[in-house]
Amino acid sequence: MRGFENFISYNDALGKISMKLKIKTETLCIASALNRISASDVLSNEYVPDNDKSAVDGYAIISDDTMNASIENPARLDIKYTVRPGQVPGSIDHGECAEVYTGSYIPINSNAVVKAEDTENHGDSIMVYRHLNMNENISKMGEDLYPGFNIIKKDSLIEAQHIAAMEAVKIEKIDVYKKIKLCIINTGDEVYYNSVRNSTGYMLKSFYSMPYIDVIGPFISRDDKNEIMNIINKNINNCDIMIITGGSSIGRYDLVGDVLSGLGKCIFSGVSIKPGRTVSLFNLNGRPVISCSGLPVAALISSYFIISKIIKNTFNISIEKPISGRLSSNVSNRIGFTKFQICRTYISDNNVIIEPLKTTGSGLISSVIKGNSFIIINDGLEGIAMNSIVMAYLIGDVKWA
Amino acid sequence: MRGFENFISYNDALGKISMKLKIKTETLCIASALNRISASDVLSNEYVPDNDKSAVDGYAIISDDTMNASIENPARLDIKYTVRPGQVPGSIDHGECAEVYTGSYIPINSNAVVKAEDTENHGDSIMVYRHLNMNENISKMGEDLYPGFNIIKKDSLIEAQHIAAMEAVKIEKIDVYKKIKLCIINTGDEVYYNSVRNSTGYMLKSFYSMPYIDVIGPFISRDDKNEIMNIINKNINNCDIMIITGGSSIGRYDLVGDVLSGLGKCIFSGVSIKPGRTVSLFNLNGRPVISCSGLPVAALISSYFIISKIIKNTFNISIEKPISGRLSSNVSNRIGFTKFQICRTYISDNNVIIEPLKTTGSGLISSVIKGNSFIIINDGLEGIAMNSIVMAYLIGDVKWA
Repeated sequence: MRGFENFISYNDALGKISMKLKIKTETLCIASALNRISASDVLSNEYVPDNDKSAVDGYAIISDDTMNASIENPARLDIKYTVRPGQVPGSIDHGECAEVYTGSYIPINSNAVVKAEDTENHGDSIMVYRHLNMNENISKMGEDLYPGFNIIKKDSLIEAQHIAAMEAVKIEKIDVYKKIKLCIINTGDEVYYNSVRNSTGYMLKSFYSMPYIDVIGPFISRDDKNEIMNIINKNINNCDIMIITGGSSIGRYDLVGDVLSGLGKCIFSGVSIKPGRTVSLFNLNGRPVISCSGLPVAALISSYFIISKIIKNTFNISIEKPISGRLSSNVSNRIGFTKFQICRTYISDNNVIIEPLKTTGSGLISSVIKGNSFIIINDGLEGIAMNSIVMAYLIGDVKWA
Repeated sequence: MRGFENFISYNDALGKISMKLKIKTETLCIASALNRISASDVLSNEYVPDNDKSAVDGYAIISDDTMNASIENPARLDIKYTVRPGQVPGSIDHGECAEVYTGSYIPINSNAVVKAEDTENHGDSIMVYRHLNMNENISKMGEDLYPGFNIIKKDSLIEAQHIAAMEAVKIEKIDVYKKIKLCIINTGDEVYYNSVRNSTGYMLKSFYSMPYIDVIGPFISRDDKNEIMNIINKNINNCDIMIITGGSSIGRYDLVGDVLSGLGKCIFSGVSIKPGRTVSLFNLNGRPVISCSGLPVAALISSYFIISKIIKNTFNISIEKPISGRLSSNVSNRIGFTKFQICRTYISDNNVIIEPLKTTGSGLISSVIKGNSFIIINDGLEGIAMNSIVMAYLIGDVKWA
């Protein structure tokens, strides 16, 4: 058995992760593009509203006609016609108004809209009791979107509001990145022969099953260098990023680490984090390959910080779900290690409470069932005091007290 | 034109939302159950680990053999054999040890494991330099999961960690609720005749496209009572919840409101919120039907708070994504209205900053493109001061400064 000789700090590891993913693009209908990543800027080529429109239900008027209007001295305006949304109106003259609805075009010459409830309706005329400013209650042409407005930036997550804006300006297709192909390989005789179930493989597959990621695998290999090498070689050119679990601990490092050393370039091997310190990163044919612990939580956390950084390097998105809150008890740390402390983050009385879990083994699946998040305790800290405001990263839904 | 006569406060509206969804269940393989809602408690029926196992790579020993071990007086132990993970070991005697790996079963009689790096290997024996406590570096049988351990509670979101735990204890199927069928109907001549695109319909469809929700529609109706009624009647028994946009404003209230009043029971009609105050809730054949503004952001926000409450009533999950942070500027409010203030929530230097947007029209699509969240300003407040810690609700991904 031999040890990892070059454990580096968490911050140094982050500094060394400069790789980017190389993802091809495809064109989708906007209805299929939700939660995918945009591959180009999308600019509006239209005005929304496409003309001045009423922002309320009421009457389009000429502002000057209400100049001296008051409760004592209301302005009387004749209702010339009604403009339904979508109808193209004519004009009005002084002393006239037009009934309009929210979204109706404003008649020619009118420059304000009085709300229906601010008037008295006399059948074919209305009484207005106050002065309306010019443009009051009017949505101006292009006040929402206009030619050149950047609906979505390149490399960003496409969300409901982007779909709505593209629909509004009649953009029907969008260039997006193809889904990131993430290949998962789990090594271990115990898993291969089913004496231990592949909970790590399903943890990773489930966790990374995001709308912009296609998980390939999990594939299982025995603790055999040739078998590991064959599975890597078979999949490396069909994926964008690879996680290999197991065969990464000090005693068994040779297996996966030696195979990867022979196939590509080691970026780092061993990081002073808990859990998951046996994590390594390699560059194989320009693709990042992560070797990490076979224990589910260690594999999750050690792959998470690397994949998170690589995705941030590549796109303007993050897999992180940060939430800031108050630490409900002291947490300790061993200087020299960056600790990912599993916590239960919950909302209580409109406050975010981050409760560190007192489990002995942070690698236990039960810890991330009782918890739903982690905080990161820097390797220079002996701990963090109760009541500190800290940032937690959700790996499950927030809870409600 | 007539007004809404019974505007109620936001809190009163929340209080009146007592409806629950009635959703049938189905049985899925665990691999298909990610992000669905569990329909029963799932208990472990196995121990994980299934026996005492080594938590490290090293040597299984008898703790007493190291009682007086020190740098000056190391204990020498003969390596009897190697236990690979999954192999069933025999026993060891005093003066002996067995090479073990992380996850290996512990030989009979052994009760501690010394890490490889804490020993000196002499080929067929090792030197141990300190006393090992009983159970040191041993994962005890069942310390992670055990019979009766609640892997997931009824009515909860099924996440990666639950899938991993079910895989670990060989649970292959799980009862889940069928997807919630959410039907969207957008009314408006202007939308029907395509003089305005149906951005509201696509906003809602995209926003509510969650793994446990099936969106049906959007369907478009002209401003015609019979047409609206026909579309409602055609879909109401094939969905669990319905949103109808447009025809809800003061001037045009009669259309959707009158149709719904004739078909079911009104729970409330008009809520003092901005934007979206024309929102109404009806009970049609036991199903919640929301009538709300045709403007995209007003429709989103006014349907959101109702659907959020109904889902919380029904399950132990929430569609809300709360995040607490510091308000970067003052926000004002008109007493008597609960304001949903669109904000841009971002992380800067490990702090969450919540920046209220200064848009005039909070109903603009561009406001939720520039912003990604909202805060709720209670109807009794004139505003919230800069630097206050407030809760924002994400409707898009958090940004990074």
